Amino acid sequence: MISFVNDYSEGACEEIMQRMQETNHLQTCGYGLDEFCKSAADKIKKKIDYEDCDVHFLVGGTQCNKTVIAASLRPFEAVICAETGHINVHETGAVENSGHKVLYAPGQNGKISCEEIEAIVAKHTDEHMVKPAMVYLSDATELGTYYTYAELKAISDCCHAHGLYLFLDGARLGNALAAKGNDLTMAHLPQLCDVFYIGGTKNGALFGEALVIVNDRLKPDFRFYIKQNGGMLAKGRLLGLQFDTLLEGDLYMRLAAHANKMAQQIADVLNECQIPFLFSSETNQIFPIFENAVLAQLREQFELGDWEAVDEQRTAIRIVTSWDTKQDAVDQFCQTVRSLA
Amino acid sequence: MISFVNDYSEGACEEIMQRMQETNHLQTCGYGLDEFCKSAADKIKKKIDYEDCDVHFLVGGTQCNKTVIAASLRPFEAVICAETGHINVHETGAVENSGHKVLYAPGQNGKISCEEIEAIVAKHTDEHMVKPAMVYLSDATELGTYYTYAELKAISDCCHAHGLYLFLDGARLGNALAAKGNDLTMAHLPQLCDVFYIGGTKNGALFGEALVIVNDRLKPDFRFYIKQNGGMLAKGRLLGLQFDTLLEGDLYMRLAAHANKMAQQIADVLNECQIPFLFSSETNQIFPIFENAVLAQLREQFELGDWEAVDEQRTAIRIVTSWDTKQDAVDQFCQTVRSLA
Amino acid sequence: MISFVNDYSEGACEEIMQRMQETNHLQTCGYGLDEFCKSAADKIKKKIDYEDCDVHFLVGGTQCNKTVIAASLRPFEAVICAETGHINVHETGAVENSGHKVLYAPGQNGKISCEEIEAIVAKHTDEHMVKPAMVYLSDATELGTYYTYAELKAISDCCHAHGLYLFLDGARLGNALAAKGNDLTMAHLPQLCDVFYIGGTKNGALFGEALVIVNDRLKPDFRFYIKQNGGMLAKGRLLGLQFDTLLEGDLYMRLAAHANKMAQQIADVLNECQIPFLFSSETNQIFPIFENAVLAQLREQFELGDWEAVDEQRTAIRIVTSWDTKQDAVDQFCQTVRSLA
Amino acid sequence: MISFVNDYSEGACEEIMQRMQETNHLQTCGYGLDEFCKSAADKIKKKIDYEDCDVHFLVGGTQCNKTVIAASLRPFEAVICAETGHINVHETGAVENSGHKVLYAPGQNGKISCEEIEAIVAKHTDEHMVKPAMVYLSDATELGTYYTYAELKAISDCCHAHGLYLFLDGARLGNALAAKGNDLTMAHLPQLCDVFYIGGTKNGALFGEALVIVNDRLKPDFRFYIKQNGGMLAKGRLLGLQFDTLLEGDLYMRLAAHANKMAQQIADVLNECQIPFLFSSETNQIFPIFENAVLAQLREQFELGDWEAVDEQRTAIRIVTSWDTKQDAVDQFCQTVRSLA
Repeated sequence: MISFVNDYSEGACEEIMQRMQETNHLQTCGYGLDEFCKSAADKIKKKIDYEDCDVHFLVGGTQCNKTVIAASLRPFEAVICAETGHINVHETGAVENSGHKVLYAPGQNGKISCEEIEAIVAKHTDEHMVKPAMVYLSDATELGTYYTYAELKAISDCCHAHGLYLFLDGARLGNALAAKGNDLTMAHLPQLCDVFYIGGTKNGALFGEALVIVNDRLKPDFRFYIKQNGGMLAKGRLLGLQFDTLLEGDLYMRLAAHANKMAQQIADVLNECQIPFLFSSETNQIFPIFENAVLAQLREQFELGDWEAVDEQRTAIRIVTSWDTKQDAVDQFCQTVRSLA
Repeated sequence: MISFVNDYSEGACEEIMQRMQETNHLQTCGYGLDEFCKSAADKIKKKIDYEDCDVHFLVGGTQCNKTVIAASLRPFEAVICAETGHINVHETGAVENSGHKVLYAPGQNGKISCEEIEAIVAKHTDEHMVKPAMVYLSDATELGTYYTYAELKAISDCCHAHGLYLFLDGARLGNALAAKGNDLTMAHLPQLCDVFYIGGTKNGALFGEALVIVNDRLKPDFRFYIKQNGGMLAKGRLLGLQFDTLLEGDLYMRLAAHANKMAQQIADVLNECQIPFLFSSETNQIFPIFENAVLAQLREQFELGDWEAVDEQRTAIRIVTSWDTKQDAVDQFCQTVRSLA
Repeated sequence: MISFVNDYSEGACEEIMQRMQETNHLQTCGYGLDEFCKSAADKIKKKIDYEDCDVHFLVGGTQCNKTVIAASLRPFEAVICAETGHINVHETGAVENSGHKVLYAPGQNGKISCEEIEAIVAKHTDEHMVKPAMVYLSDATELGTYYTYAELKAISDCCHAHGLYLFLDGARLGNALAAKGNDLTMAHLPQLCDVFYIGGTKNGALFGEALVIVNDRLKPDFRFYIKQNGGMLAKGRLLGLQFDTLLEGDLYMRLAAHANKMAQQIADVLNECQIPFLFSSETNQIFPIFENAVLAQLREQFELGDWEAVDEQRTAIRIVTSWDTKQDAVDQFCQTVRSLA
Repeated sequence: MISFVNDYSEGACEEIMQRMQETNHLQTCGYGLDEFCKSAADKIKKKIDYEDCDVHFLVGGTQCNKTVIAASLRPFEAVICAETGHINVHETGAVENSGHKVLYAPGQNGKISCEEIEAIVAKHTDEHMVKPAMVYLSDATELGTYYTYAELKAISDCCHAHGLYLFLDGARLGNALAAKGNDLTMAHLPQLCDVFYIGGTKNGALFGEALVIVNDRLKPDFRFYIKQNGGMLAKGRLLGLQFDTLLEGDLYMRLAAHANKMAQQIADVLNECQIPFLFSSETNQIFPIFENAVLAQLREQFELGDWEAVDEQRTAIRIVTSWDTKQDAVDQFCQTVRSLA
């Protein structure tokens, strides 16, 4: 059955699979100190047009978020995010487990605003409360929306005015950058963020996130944190090799653009059929609202993830497409929707 | 200058001071294993009419909250409370520092409801999220309100239906029980709560909270948690001795009733003068709203704690009275208010 | 240059690489709930001849150790191991970072004894000290030695007599089981251990450890711990698929036997050349002592890891062979040693 | 029955009791921001002849150790101490519970040496291991011995050469400074240590340790750590008032000298009776070895703490005297020993 449940249902793009095969019996040193990691880091520095940063490769997003926050904050410091932020809801309290409070604001469609950040800062005034020290945001967000350059610049300015680090979770960075209307580029990121990552798991790699540390204060001893948090992969070259491949030419952006295109084709057809959405999103995640009866019929042919019950008759679902979603699958889904509408 | 800033501005009631003097040179064993602690524990068991519980004495409220929660929850489990809950805002993230997420609901006037608890439970469905395992509430609340028997019984039933422990922070328990309209008694507590404490610091002791563990699952090895959390007082007899004194006869309730009476006298005069309140409260904390100009004049004679700006002209303050507040001080304040109104 | 530095220098065995290619575009659900993981778990249960256990797949050893210990112990409980135990020296304090003390005994050639365990238990008598609750050991050990059935049985009995869990780190389990003189089998493990793992990273997989939980008390909610510790791989099928392949037929043991054989060939030649060893070991790690001048010459052709300076003239090194070490490489090394001796 | 079990068996010296009574109804602000704390801090700065330090008052030693270490170290950093160090054996893993490994060396009679510190530093070379960042020592030690100026100076130099903070636990500082042969003074401490404390609990106070932070890097935000660790006493003035009293004139040193004198009188008589000691100690703790039969008779009249069995016939005990030990009690013990010897 065709699945639109998430963007990590398939393996890796062929370029990665081939290169993994080619280099399989090569002996390299472990723990990310190999030549593939070095080459991938160099490519990233070029893509972001920024030399003076440290690049580390970690296996997954939760690992990455947990490690960055543990490394950046002192025990009484807290991280601010939107209520829907991955660290707030979908990481089993990993941030709290490393000792830090997550302070959240409602946000709008997954995005936090300067006003919300400033309101939280204003409320935390003395040593009986935690001290906000970092803002975490995801781009694309958990709701498939993205931050424009102006929005991210404003948040960055707000953070730095209040002595807060800005940490951008880029698990779906490609989808944000490839979205229609987006004006943010990779080269903006080191200008605006203290630390961010470029996601591989959800954009053509078997696994892996490339973490870029821009702020000098966050650089020292970071490998101790990776190891302590169980994130140091013995065969680290697998991470380097995958990013070295993804960042060759425009492969990374091509894969993300494909995923977005597939979702937006579906969105167009749903609009045409007057199926409403919970809110508008421009990347590879869309949140249409179906009559439960229609949904039941769709689910005879497609795997579709529940999002939330809208009322007794209707349910919002989350449709996610990936770098590997087939045009055929999308066509088949659109056709079925049209026939049911 | 007379202070109405809090209820821990003075030392201890004379009965305690005298007994501390009398027993000063006695040699006892350390760490709460002495005869005074034993005697105090026995008195508590009688007051709450419940034998099958463990009693421990800790120095303060944050220490107590942190230790109980660390001892009760497994690393992925979370504690639910009202947004205003002390553990959520005024303990510098102590609960998160011991690894646990605090899940909060808005509450009403400092009180959480069953509906709010159930909504949080319903949202936490799988291993990507923390698992709610305990409800924390304060009685009296941080806003000077209290839970009726029916309210606490409903929450207790709700907790036990959902497999949640109920933990009652009684730092101001005396003030709740002595409040006008209250129908909850000490003997209800072991029937409704898994663990609770009877506050001393804010009701006539130099320091100290008497923790009562009712649920058998929370009893084993609790002294390890006290010690690990830095809460095991070398001269533990000081804690036992204070509670042994406070719980003799009706001293504990008399002290709390006095504090309430002082605040309610002020509230009556404020009402009479048509000074509004942020909300109504029945214990030793009240939250009137003053014109800023009036407030400035009051502050020439009285220390008064800010609560929040209501608008540009008016500010809500918190007035707190204690077991040791003098009738004279209250009279003087009331007279000043009348003269300014 | 040929490397004998470790057993994670190469990629994965061909069987795995091929299967990864074949299944690459298949859509599966995430987080280890797929069919490959299920099939691999079934194969493990057959190999260990034990149905009533839970099997989880994690990416690496430190992650696995940290997660198991965090899930098994309460905050005041401690884990016992040999001084050389991986958790004690080479995991950047990951166990302490999750709140637990590591209690260690000197051990002998990397192996802990019942006497040492009992001495530690005897010393921890009250709530001012941590409480020992688990024994951790590695088989093969960090020094290339292994536990016989009788030794492991004695430790298991000792643990259970003292209420301690027994946790066996099997990162190099294949090498232990394939060692000359070993009489322990996979089917013994669930009889003796409360929890153990079968290592993949160091025996032919790209990465992965298969964790087996035998003791019912350690089973509930384990997936919460995996997620919270950042160890839940999005494309979990990669773990299942690798173990499903390794555990088909005798592949797993064949790979380990090859690694051992390569190291023991080198050991034989070194013995023949009267090169001494720090101690005797029977698996894929050996620790010969070379004159520094000889070592310098060997290092013109081979990468060799330092272990420790024995005196001013001599250095002990660690030679590690792997499932992928070539006979040619070993021959070349032996020939060079002979020519230098 | 007269107890020689510890130095926290009694209440507080009369000067403290009287002052507590006199100031009992005074209203002060909470949490250590009152005038008594300020005055006590000023007196400390004079006693140690050092202005540029921060002084905080905490309730007890474990609380103090835990908080200082949590505030000083980053998550991957470790603290070095002697095996007998209080943080290593008698704090229920509080340091590990806040995430840090304790690295220990055997030490000699409770004292760690530069060679031991350097050996530990030399072994910790990369990010797979914790990084030593602080040395903790107690003066007087847990075995009643003390560090001379030269010894402490050497350790201080060693620490600073290796980038380690030096933290001195002075729970029994008075006993060290008052010991026969000691040449260390209070004024040396800020010259040698980065952070240290002056113990009150074991020298005439009801409770309390006065923490002095000398190193500028350890000063910021320390009150957040106190609060987060549950160590911020509501009626903080009780701490200030006690130290303000103890540090008036020579009271602090007089109390400690008395305790030492009592123990050394006993030691002299034991020597005279040819009772051997486990090792020699010069403060208020001594460790004689008695025939078990003699010990049983002594215990008919005196409470005496076991230390360790020396052989089947003999047991070492710990005798501790305090600021409040009566000359009569000592005379009675000495007489009994003489009659039994």
